[in-house]
Amino acid sequence: MTMKLFFAAGACSFVPHTLLEASGRPFDSQLVKLHKGEHREAAFLALNARGQVPVLVADSVAITQIVAIALFLDEQFPDCGFLPREGIARAKALETLCWMNNTVHPTFTHVFMPQKFTDDPQAQASVRLANTQLFREQLRELQAIVTGSAATASGWLSGSHFGPLDAYALTLVRWGSMVGIDPASMPELWSFVQRVAAHEPVAVVIARERLQLNMFRPA
Amino acid sequence: MTMKLFFAAGACSFVPHTLLEASGRPFDSQLVKLHKGEHREAAFLALNARGQVPVLVADSVAITQIVAIALFLDEQFPDCGFLPREGIARAKALETLCWMNNTVHPTFTHVFMPQKFTDDPQAQASVRLANTQLFREQLRELQAIVTGSAATASGWLSGSHFGPLDAYALTLVRWGSMVGIDPASMPELWSFVQRVAAHEPVAVVIARERLQLNMFRPA
Repeated sequence: MTMKLFFAAGACSFVPHTLLEASGRPFDSQLVKLHKGEHREAAFLALNARGQVPVLVADSVAITQIVAIALFLDEQFPDCGFLPREGIARAKALETLCWMNNTVHPTFTHVFMPQKFTDDPQAQASVRLANTQLFREQLRELQAIVTGSAATASGWLSGSHFGPLDAYALTLVRWGSMVGIDPASMPELWSFVQRVAAHEPVAVVIARERLQLNMFRPA
Repeated sequence: MTMKLFFAAGACSFVPHTLLEASGRPFDSQLVKLHKGEHREAAFLALNARGQVPVLVADSVAITQIVAIALFLDEQFPDCGFLPREGIARAKALETLCWMNNTVHPTFTHVFMPQKFTDDPQAQASVRLANTQLFREQLRELQAIVTGSAATASGWLSGSHFGPLDAYALTLVRWGSMVGIDPASMPELWSFVQRVAAHEPVAVVIARERLQLNMFRPA
């Protein structure tokens, strides 16, 4: 099966990008330049009419949605152990993955792009403010998940293998640092994210996407 | 394995509720009265600190998140065919399930509970207005998915078996009818949802939750 990932630097496409890299299998990747509006061009919209990254093209079929792509890669590369194999352990890992995806990630979207939720500039400022506070609380909740999981020792968020939860945790903390949330204010979470960043396939993707892990600047 | 579902009438817990009913297996269920604040009481918060339904307690472990619960039930009851078994067919079904869960569902939350996103009453009105329009567009997109899928004939959204996509589609259309979106304005989608509602296990759950399918009232 051939695989090609369409990603944007620093976007949530970082999650499948690191899984593909960690798989050790060959894959193609293509950078979609959001600041140049490439996600709104016809060629990209033909892959994903919603104009969002990531898109994974697997044998010429375009698959979107982080969670769907992560589950697909987990199925295709069972030896990688991206997620617990079955039962309640798998369900609990998916619970956290879905929460990151449908709760924490959209909270950041409200801070970063409030114009998606209201046309009124004053309402946008109010939405940004409320959601920055909410995002900080959710990152604290993420820290509690990290400290209560296998990740506290030398393991990873869903067990003994690196997987989508680890890459998503890094992405969310990095996004927080872009909007004034100092990673150092959550030491256990920040320590874990730095360890994720140092994991070789993750470090390769950070270099390929030219990411700065900590964008926080004191006021 | 024992299973007990905590649900609220008409909430997204309708999705796992119908899957459990369709499985034909024994399960317990408990109504959580949101209007009485039961989801904020200590007994419920001990199951889900986020204070949300659904919670599925499987052998004394509490599992939250619709997508995680649906995948768990699909794994536990493989004979039900709630989702395509594997490969790209499974990935495409999960893509739509995740989109319903992380995009369409939260859009409704902005309409129904704008106070979750901003404290300012004026901003809330603006958020509600913008998201009602967005919700209408997303239901149209859902209609296009229905007409482009196996559901057009006598099948279901992810193939030849009833599953979480069908129950979620019904829930989203019903929610739309609560906020002024006339289901009859999307005839193919509405026709499909009525067929889902008539499917026996779904009809049983509609009766148990005492739901009115179409809440639309002309202005």
